[in-house]
Amino acid sequence: MTESSEPMEVNRVSSQKLRSFAAAILHKQGVPQEDAAFVAEVLVEADLRGVDSHGVTRLAGYVSMMHKGVLNPRPAIRVVHDSGATAALDGDHGFGMLGARLGMATAIEKARQFGVAIVTARNLSHTGMVGFYTMSAASQDMIGIAMNNGAGIVPPFGGLTPTHGTNPFSVAFPTESDPVVLDMATTMVAAGKLRLAAKKGAPIPLDWGLDRRGEPTDDPNEVLEGGVLQWAGGYKGFGIATAVEVLGGVLSGGLFARDVPQLKVFGQDPIIANGAYIAVDIRRFMPLTEFCQRMTSLVDQIRSSEPAPGVERVYVAGEPEFMLKEQRTREGIPLSAEVYHELFELSKEYSAPFDIIQHGREP
Amino acid sequence: MTESSEPMEVNRVSSQKLRSFAAAILHKQGVPQEDAAFVAEVLVEADLRGVDSHGVTRLAGYVSMMHKGVLNPRPAIRVVHDSGATAALDGDHGFGMLGARLGMATAIEKARQFGVAIVTARNLSHTGMVGFYTMSAASQDMIGIAMNNGAGIVPPFGGLTPTHGTNPFSVAFPTESDPVVLDMATTMVAAGKLRLAAKKGAPIPLDWGLDRRGEPTDDPNEVLEGGVLQWAGGYKGFGIATAVEVLGGVLSGGLFARDVPQLKVFGQDPIIANGAYIAVDIRRFMPLTEFCQRMTSLVDQIRSSEPAPGVERVYVAGEPEFMLKEQRTREGIPLSAEVYHELFELSKEYSAPFDIIQHGREP
Repeated sequence: MTESSEPMEVNRVSSQKLRSFAAAILHKQGVPQEDAAFVAEVLVEADLRGVDSHGVTRLAGYVSMMHKGVLNPRPAIRVVHDSGATAALDGDHGFGMLGARLGMATAIEKARQFGVAIVTARNLSHTGMVGFYTMSAASQDMIGIAMNNGAGIVPPFGGLTPTHGTNPFSVAFPTESDPVVLDMATTMVAAGKLRLAAKKGAPIPLDWGLDRRGEPTDDPNEVLEGGVLQWAGGYKGFGIATAVEVLGGVLSGGLFARDVPQLKVFGQDPIIANGAYIAVDIRRFMPLTEFCQRMTSLVDQIRSSEPAPGVERVYVAGEPEFMLKEQRTREGIPLSAEVYHELFELSKEYSAPFDIIQHGREP
Repeated sequence: MTESSEPMEVNRVSSQKLRSFAAAILHKQGVPQEDAAFVAEVLVEADLRGVDSHGVTRLAGYVSMMHKGVLNPRPAIRVVHDSGATAALDGDHGFGMLGARLGMATAIEKARQFGVAIVTARNLSHTGMVGFYTMSAASQDMIGIAMNNGAGIVPPFGGLTPTHGTNPFSVAFPTESDPVVLDMATTMVAAGKLRLAAKKGAPIPLDWGLDRRGEPTDDPNEVLEGGVLQWAGGYKGFGIATAVEVLGGVLSGGLFARDVPQLKVFGQDPIIANGAYIAVDIRRFMPLTEFCQRMTSLVDQIRSSEPAPGVERVYVAGEPEFMLKEQRTREGIPLSAEVYHELFELSKEYSAPFDIIQHGREP
């Protein structure tokens, strides 16, 4: 992590300014203002939390996708069915953030009525960091669960032919302070982390993926170009990814497995994801304060576990990301030279003021 | 796997006879006949599916637990609350199978009414193979999700002080033939597999657990006695285990983390588990036949993935277990000499006819 005494780098940008800039660029592409602001919020939240692979590194690709007509800037998201504590949405190939937001909002509304709800959403484009939607549920005193499938880039455990996306899965629980947030790809890492490593020219650990010959490699491009990612926990990660494929892809009436169009080049090919959003109303089980106290006890027990040799601190899920968000809000978000340059090019192309550098500390 | 030409071994037993025997032993301990039959069914289903760690190897321990008064043979399972698509049960420290069965049955009934439901169950003793309950949902045309916490024997990722159980998680989906069933401990393996290896005197892979000094070991006793299990996928398995700890332990109003009594000796100490059971009514989303066809397409795509070098076949989750069940139903269940001896001792002690050997093939 960055020391506070470190000299300010040119690529340390303000989260507020970055949000405004991203929203302005999207709005110039015909995305309605409020939608543009929300997409920008999801992207910058990822950058703040250190999930850089799902941050503004995506912005130029989204713009390019809209130009190519594979991302709908003004989707007519519709309710395909609505029945009791269930609903199914169609995202009309617009920003996945919008469909995911409506999916979770609908689940929360129904959970208030019934105690629990599940809402599917098909034909979403890229949804960004899936934990955004579960944290939204937690901030409304709900347990939130969210997931989505995507283009088949990972083979089944033991196989070589890709069938599954990296199928991210998130669950968030409110506590007396920050929520506990699990937000994970079911592979060792998300494909976006490979793309970011490739952009940086950085090597990757050998257990992230295999090359086209089925051999481990430390070159992210070797995995991205004809290679395959590896599952977290072998057949266990594959099993969870299959559950995501079913709840997101099969149950939603959307595309699944090899029927999802291939994503060869981010920014040129369409992205189709299909998700499921679950909310549980805690108050049906006990008073919210009691639940949050119990959560705090769980968190305290986890944190106070004696650290293993060589480990400084034991964290609950999501905690390192909240710490990083606090730091990056204060000190700015470090952007790689390449991502910074991409944004600069976008500002020139679309005549948007390029004022994103963080000057000193923000309040 | 066993070749059909292999000579019949003395420890190859009939699933039907084993079920009757286990039920008879339990009934002699005061377990009502129908409950005894159900517990025996769950145990033998585990043996049939190759989840030997959760099979009749547990029977002697259950009997011992009842004698010691730490397992209630006639629990008064009660509904703590019932509200909309949610409910919470208390299992009264009886066989966990009974609370889990009622939990999933209640979830299914409510899902028929509302489309989805979540039911918690606290104060369960050992629940056996958690996949039993999700498969039960799938056989009733529902998506089933089940999980439970347990005695804290696994530390947080990066820690040494145990806080979590192995926190099994299962999800099952109906298809046009066998359901797809994920049934996994969130650790590399369940503790029962260590106990079975210890009983057999067999070494274990080095990534299953650490000894008391935090070093990898191939001796299951070194892990069981003061050592710790390892998470599947590192912090990802730990995150999923935390979600199970919350949905099962925190939300149920039951015990969680270090408040769950330690399980030092199976058969002597009480076992307390707390679970959550979720059912989703597929028909709210699409006709069941359409869903099952889509599932078959997913399964076919997974199975037809080109196998990696050295891999014979690619399987969907649960498929190897269904194949083994078919074989073991036909050819008998192989019991280790030690487990066979345990059952023989039980038969003598409780004057139960010991007729469990499979003579030739069953229909």
